[in-house]
Parts: sequence; structure tokens; C-alpha cells
Amino acid sequence: MGILDTNGRASFLDAKLNKINLFENAQMFCDLYCLEPGQEQKVHEHADATKFYFVLEGRVSITIGDDTQDVAPRGLGWSAPGEPHGVRNVGTERAVLLVSMAPHPRFGGTAKP
Amino acid sequence: MGILDTNGRASFLDAKLNKINLFENAQMFCDLYCLEPGQEQKVHEHADATKFYFVLEGRVSITIGDDTQDVAPRGLGWSAPGEPHGVRNVGTERAVLLVSMAPHPRFGGTAKP
Repeated sequence: MGILDTNGRASFLDAKLNKINLFENAQMFCDLYCLEPGQEQKVHEHADATKFYFVLEGRVSITIGDDTQDVAPRGLGWSAPGEPHGVRNVGTERAVLLVSMAPHPRFGGTAKP
Repeated sequence: MGILDTNGRASFLDAKLNKINLFENAQMFCDLYCLEPGQEQKVHEHADATKFYFVLEGRVSITIGDDTQDVAPRGLGWSAPGEPHGVRNVGTERAVLLVSMAPHPRFGGTAKP
């Protein structure tokens, strides 16, 4: 449905990680997640959806199930339905991730904290 | 279901674009598309799936519907179900794209040339 330049789209919040939606429909969404050092998305799960984190900038710690690893740009973590996942900026620089989930949880999926 | 480093995963074929699968299940797949200069994925459509191209390296021409644009790294093109899409490496360097589709067409979706 479109062609866009994601350069310059990242923006950050002091209070928490910032999610910048790039596109979405019922089948999937694609976001930029922007994390200041120390910010995180707490480990959580989606019963009915698959999700991935792809690191564009910075150094983050990704948790997928029982596995937690420090990940540099071009690192990828993905979770199957029902599998716990989370990410934390463990570096000293801002981190930017490309994040996609399918199907879109707002169109029928469920999230558990 | 896993954490992986995609650095060094790109590889190229003389004959055609090379697709490197990073992960897949019924809900989505994620690939690297690796294109030598001049290589392309011809415009096609998937009746039942959403797809995106995200440029990691190189300069490509992305077609989404009636729109065709030259795109640099961090450019993104996405197609809704039934919408024509394709990509061609119009630069002088190799191109690498992160590509994801949902749901996975092999698990029930259809592709039309």
C-alpha cells in the first residue's frame, strides 16, 4: 500500500520506549521501536501471534523463551505464539529496532503481560 | 523461537536473486533477499497475504501497485493482499533486503504471477 523512507522516523521518549508505526493491517504490523539506554519492553507473550525484533541501531538484550542474548545491529529475535519475548537497551547509545507481528493483535490476537 | 545474527548470512547467485530464509511458520516468514545489480523479483501479487521489503544495503527500485520509486537503505515498501509488488536492483552495488510476509503463502496463501 505504500513506499516510505524510514530514515529520520525514529524518535524517543524520556518516560518509556517509543513505538513508531510504519504500516498495519489485520495481517501484520511493522513498527520502529526506539529505546533510550536502559529502556525496555518487558517480557510478555502473545497467545496467537508471531513477532520479530530486528536491530537497526544500538546494542540490546533480547529474550526469547528461556534464552537471553546481547544483540548488535542485524541481530534478530523471533517468538512463536505463546512464547515469552522482550527487549532491553543495554548499551550506552540509543537503540532502534524494526519490529513486526502477524497477525495484528488488535485485530483479534491477544496479549498477556 | 530463536535469536540469530544475520550478519554474514547474505549470499548471491549469478542466475537470479537469492532468498535466505531467517525463520518461518504458518503466520509469517522472514527472508533476506540478495540481488546482484540488475537482478529483480518481477512484479507479482499474493491474493491473501501482506508483504514488505525493507532495504538494508544497496539501491533498489520498488514497485507497489502503480507506484515505482528508487529506494535507499531504510526504505520500505509494503503491499496489501492482491496488490502487485516487485523489486529490482538498479544500483551498481549488491542489494540486501529484509522481506517478510504474513501469513506464509505456503501454508494456505496463493501467489499469482
